[in-house]
Order: sequence, then structure tokens, then C-alpha cells
Amino acid sequence: MNLPLGYRYAATYAGIRAQQRDDLALIVSGMPASTAAVFTQNRVQAAPVKLARRHVKASEGRMGAILINAGNANCATRSGDRVALESCQAAGKLLRYAARQILPASTGVIGVELPAKLITKALPTLVNNLSGDAFGDVARAILTTDLVAKQSFAEVTLSRGTVRIAGLTKGSGMIHPNMATTLGFVMTDAQIAPAPLAKILKRANGASYSAISVDGDTSTNDTLVLMANGASGVRVLPADLEIFEAAVITVLQDLAKQIVRDGEGAKKLITIEVTGAPTDQGAAAIARVIANSPLVKTAVAGSDPNWGRILCAAGYAGVPFDPAKVDIDLQGVAVCRGGLGAPFEEADLKTKMDAPDCLIRVAIKGGKGRATFWTCDLTHDYIRINASYRT
Amino acid sequence: MNLPLGYRYAATYAGIRAQQRDDLALIVSGMPASTAAVFTQNRVQAAPVKLARRHVKASEGRMGAILINAGNANCATRSGDRVALESCQAAGKLLRYAARQILPASTGVIGVELPAKLITKALPTLVNNLSGDAFGDVARAILTTDLVAKQSFAEVTLSRGTVRIAGLTKGSGMIHPNMATTLGFVMTDAQIAPAPLAKILKRANGASYSAISVDGDTSTNDTLVLMANGASGVRVLPADLEIFEAAVITVLQDLAKQIVRDGEGAKKLITIEVTGAPTDQGAAAIARVIANSPLVKTAVAGSDPNWGRILCAAGYAGVPFDPAKVDIDLQGVAVCRGGLGAPFEEADLKTKMDAPDCLIRVAIKGGKGRATFWTCDLTHDYIRINASYRT
Repeated sequence: MNLPLGYRYAATYAGIRAQQRDDLALIVSGMPASTAAVFTQNRVQAAPVKLARRHVKASEGRMGAILINAGNANCATRSGDRVALESCQAAGKLLRYAARQILPASTGVIGVELPAKLITKALPTLVNNLSGDAFGDVARAILTTDLVAKQSFAEVTLSRGTVRIAGLTKGSGMIHPNMATTLGFVMTDAQIAPAPLAKILKRANGASYSAISVDGDTSTNDTLVLMANGASGVRVLPADLEIFEAAVITVLQDLAKQIVRDGEGAKKLITIEVTGAPTDQGAAAIARVIANSPLVKTAVAGSDPNWGRILCAAGYAGVPFDPAKVDIDLQGVAVCRGGLGAPFEEADLKTKMDAPDCLIRVAIKGGKGRATFWTCDLTHDYIRINASYRT
Repeated sequence: MNLPLGYRYAATYAGIRAQQRDDLALIVSGMPASTAAVFTQNRVQAAPVKLARRHVKASEGRMGAILINAGNANCATRSGDRVALESCQAAGKLLRYAARQILPASTGVIGVELPAKLITKALPTLVNNLSGDAFGDVARAILTTDLVAKQSFAEVTLSRGTVRIAGLTKGSGMIHPNMATTLGFVMTDAQIAPAPLAKILKRANGASYSAISVDGDTSTNDTLVLMANGASGVRVLPADLEIFEAAVITVLQDLAKQIVRDGEGAKKLITIEVTGAPTDQGAAAIARVIANSPLVKTAVAGSDPNWGRILCAAGYAGVPFDPAKVDIDLQGVAVCRGGLGAPFEEADLKTKMDAPDCLIRVAIKGGKGRATFWTCDLTHDYIRINASYRT
């Protein structure tokens, strides 16, 4: 798979984190790129989040680079705003962009001052090292508690030619990862204006990053960026919008699922499909509580078809439904019909549940709302107590 | 401490759970007792919960006995309603109470038929074995994943004399124990009418069982009962109401904290006090998200004064506040003032945090709302990734 045209990348160790491991990274477009971004909904927002929001607006969604550091969230500190701004100014100067065309992002510890000097001193080296090949270096530099680097690529052929999409992300799908910052950066060489790009990102985020159990409990620093620099010379025509959006969604879902798979001790990716809710929002609420239920997740880890836990979790989602009209399928096997147990071959289903992917389908038959969520199983000691509880 | 007068207890093994361990228990009052109860808010409710609700109403809050089984939740089954009713009828007949004066409660696996015969066959033995001393046997019989039995006792002197209160409970404060059924049964020999008793239970529940991180994600079977049989001959006069309620709250808080201390791998009890919220409800919402935050709980486990995680959790409680007006204290040490780090002696505070009790105080200075919550720390592998993250 080819990387999108017109981007260069670099990563270096700036001394921000204790371990000597790259902690500062740049993603630079050769020309101003249409840029859309979504940020954390937390009331406590890190300085780079506040500045990034302002910069996207001030540049009217035409930005040049993304500057990312790991090891320090630059949040709840005295000098935070100044540090974020000085970093963007210094990067802009070296890259010949206005400061407002630099999008800052940070991840790491909260409440510890981040010395601006660490960043400004490392920037010249970083800029000198920019290369079209260093995509993977950036993917590694932004990690914190992640076990593996996460990247995804796509090529899609539109009316006027082929465009490329490449994304990298960090974040670790923990038990209930309420403060594990998620950063995601997706670059494409398609040519598209900022306004339609923002609409695409909003919908794609809803179908990916907002559909893993990371979301909801947002960190102070969560940031997801989509850049389109047009370097392919291929314009996204109105007729291409749907297929282009589908390709963006594919990349974002792939990245989001990689976050879930990197869950602490996770052995299985669980997909939760809810249909028949009063609304899509209601379906998402039900899928979310199932995804966040440790007892469901331990049952899956233990390959235990304990559908009662799924039904119970659905019951406290705050969405009205009739328990007597609920059907549940596990790995395609009917385990609950009309809120009651359906006959199934336990040993056979257990074997099916040993697979690295688990599909839970819940049909509540109260409307047309549907949603898909992803989460991981819960292993370790927690399982010792819960997974064998049913038998 | 003396047990309340006029109650008898019994427990036996009825073959409901696989392990040969008592799984059926009776608490019987010698005379009809004023009875108040609160139940799960889950949309999926077990048959015994639905029947108990009806029986409290039908008996006008004057009940004779509580019949409890462990090993099967009697929820989402074809025969559930009939089994619950037949059990109460059989118990009522043997105890010379109307069926509506028997309060049923179940805990265990969901979606597996519970044979009524197991209960009705064991009931005669159970009734024959009733004894004033078997309180502890009942406390053990109702356990499922709990590691220890949980009991609490109080004596309180009112205007007309002394009354006794005794409570037993089950439930295990797990990571996010959304479906670990909580059962709590509190008996007193005070003389008080059902209506004021219900008011006392409602408030006491709010300050105890609803203030541990078990609540919110309620199981299908959660049940908390308060019985007052008047066997002491001591009436609770209007002037005694406050002191009597305080004693009930003490017992309920003690039981609720025992549930938290029995958390999976828990080594510390964490108390979270939130003040200065717009309302008490807002304070409770903030205390709850802090209590449910695995990253806060792992930091406490690692004696890491990572106040940024506390501030961040508060930020997604959905309660408006100004982060620049937040003060945080850990073990009485100021760690955050006005949303920024306060200077503290790290090594010293770490030693203080090694204690088995941890106090987190959050003052958000936006009103007069206050709340106290209890939760436990998170240990094991989860800590390996998170607890050392800050240093």
C-alpha cells in the first residue's frame, strides 16, 4: 500500500519522558491541507486541545502540520497555554507556516509542567529529519501505555483517479479506559474542501472511535484529525463522496479496532450489534453498556455463553424495552429468544467462542435503531472469580 | 453486641448451587414486622424482585419472613414467577404467615430454571432448624462470589429504652460490579410503623448502598430490606427518629463498606468526599465517576498521588464546574489548588497513601452540594501498566 503523496514525517527523543524513546513527532504536509478535527468532551481540557481547536478555526481548516508529544499531557499546568503556543510558533517558523496552521497534540501525565525548551530545542533536528518514509516512526513515538504501534492504509479509486489514506493512532483499550488518551491522525492526498471533510470526519468518528468502549469517558487530550492536502490532484467529486467516506470509515474503524485489540490482557475482539432499539442513539446506549460490562467481557474471555449477563447489562442502559421481546445470538447461535433461554449445544458454542473474534447480536424489537460497538474481553484474575460463575 | 429480639434464622443446602454449601436461608420474625424495601432499577427484574415488591405492598408493609436463595437468580426463566410464588406459599404455610407476608430474594446465575421442588423440599428442615443464633449461618449462605461474610450490629438507646439493629449482606465490590447482585437484610426490634420506616430506609440507602460504586449499574436482583418487629417493646418516638435513623445509617454504611473492602484484589478502602458542587446530585455524580475510574483506583493502589487523574475524572461527570477553582486533597495533604499542582512532599505522601484507608477530598467551589462515596483500589496486572505511568 502506498502512503498519501505530499506528507513528510519525523520523530525524535526530546527528553520529555523518562525512558529514552522517541517522544516528539511531526507530520507535515507540503502544502496547506484541508483539516478537520474532533476533540475530547471533557470539561477539563489540555492546553494543546484548546489551542488546536482555535487553530483549526483561525486557519479556516487549512493547516500545514501536526506536532505531537508523548510523555506529558500539558494539562492542568501553569505554563501550559504558553508552552503549546510557543511550540506551534517555533514549528511554524521552521516549516514556513503560520503558527495557526500547526495543530498541537499531547499525551502523557497530567499536572506536570512541560518545559517549552525541550520541544523548541528538538524541533530543528526534527524538521531536518523529515522524510516521506518515517510514518512508522511517528506511529511509535506517540505511544504511551500501548503495547503495539497502530497504522492503517487504504487506496480508493474515485472518478478522477486514485487517492491514498493513511492513519496512525495511539490508545489502549483497557478495562474502562476513561483517561487513556486517544490520538488519531489520518492523512489523505485527496482534494476536498474543509467543510465536507469535517462532515465526513464527524460521521466516520461516530462509526469508529466513538463506537469503542474508549469513548464517553474521554480524556483531557483526545484528538482525532483528518488532513486532505490534495497532492494527488484528484478532486473528490459529489458523486465520489460516498465511496471516499466509506474508505475513511474503513481506516478509522481499523484503527479503532486496533486500539481495542491492544487492550490490557485482551485476547479477543468483541463486536456488539444491537438492532430494534427505538433510535440509533438508544441502540448505541445499549451496545455501550454491554461493551463496558466486565461480567460480559469475562464471560467471553472464558468462552462462557452467559447470555443472562448480556440481557442484564442491556437492562440498565436507560433505554425502554420489553425484556420479553429480546433475542440474543452468540457467534451466530441463538441463545436467547423472547427473553428466555433458547436450546443450544453448550460444548459446541464454547468451542466457537474460543475464536479470537466474538460476535454478540442483540435484537430488542422495539424500533429501527441500530448500532455496532467494539470492545475486548477481560482476562486474568477477574476471570477467576467471574467466568466460571455460571457453571 | 446483642441480636435484635424476636427473630430466628436458619440456613441449609437445598442443592441449588453445584458446590455443597448452604444456599437457602430464612429470616423469620416471631410477629408481623414493619417492613420497608428498595429494589433494583434494572429494566430486567428477576421474578423474586417483582413478587417481593407486590408482597410488600399487599401486606401493607407488615411481613413475617425473608426467604433467600443463592446459586440461581430466578431471572429470565419460564417458570420464574411460579417458582417464586410457590416458594413463598410453602414458606408461609409452614410459618403460619400469609404468602404475601414472605419476602423472596434470589442471587446467582441468570437464565437457568430454578426447580421449585428444591426449595419446597428443603423448607420443612429449614423451618425446624430455626434458631435465634443462626444469624451468621444466613450471612454465609447468601454469599456467591464474596470472599467473606458481612454482618453489622448496633444498639441504640431511645427515650423508652434500648433497641438492637443487626444487618447481613452480600455483594462484592468488583472493578465495575454491574451485575454482582447486592442483597442486604437489616433487622431491628424497635417499634415503628411501616411508613416512617420506609422513609428511613430510603435516606439510609442513599447514604450507604447507593454511595458505593456497586450502585447505578444495578443487577436484576438487588434487594435491600429493613424489618422492625417491635419485639423490644420500645417505640421510636418522634423525638427519637433522628438518632434511630443515624443508627440504621451506621449499620448500612458499615455493611456497604464491607462490600467494597471485599473487592476483587482490593487492598484499600477509598473514601471520596466532594463538596462545593451546584447540588448534592452533582456532587454525587462527580464522586461516582471518580469512584469508578480505574486509573484513579490503580494510582491509589500504587500509592501514587496522581491528582491529575482525579481532576480528569471529575471533568467527565457531566456536571458544570470551573477547573480553575478545584482543590484536591489526598490523605489530608493539599495536592491541587485552583486546578494546578500544589507543592507537596512526594515521598511523605506516598507513605501516607500506603495506609489501608485512602481519603480523597475534592472541593469544586461552585455551590453547596456535597456527597461521600466509597470504592476500593485496583491491584494486579492493571496496575503494572497504569500505576507507574506518572513517574
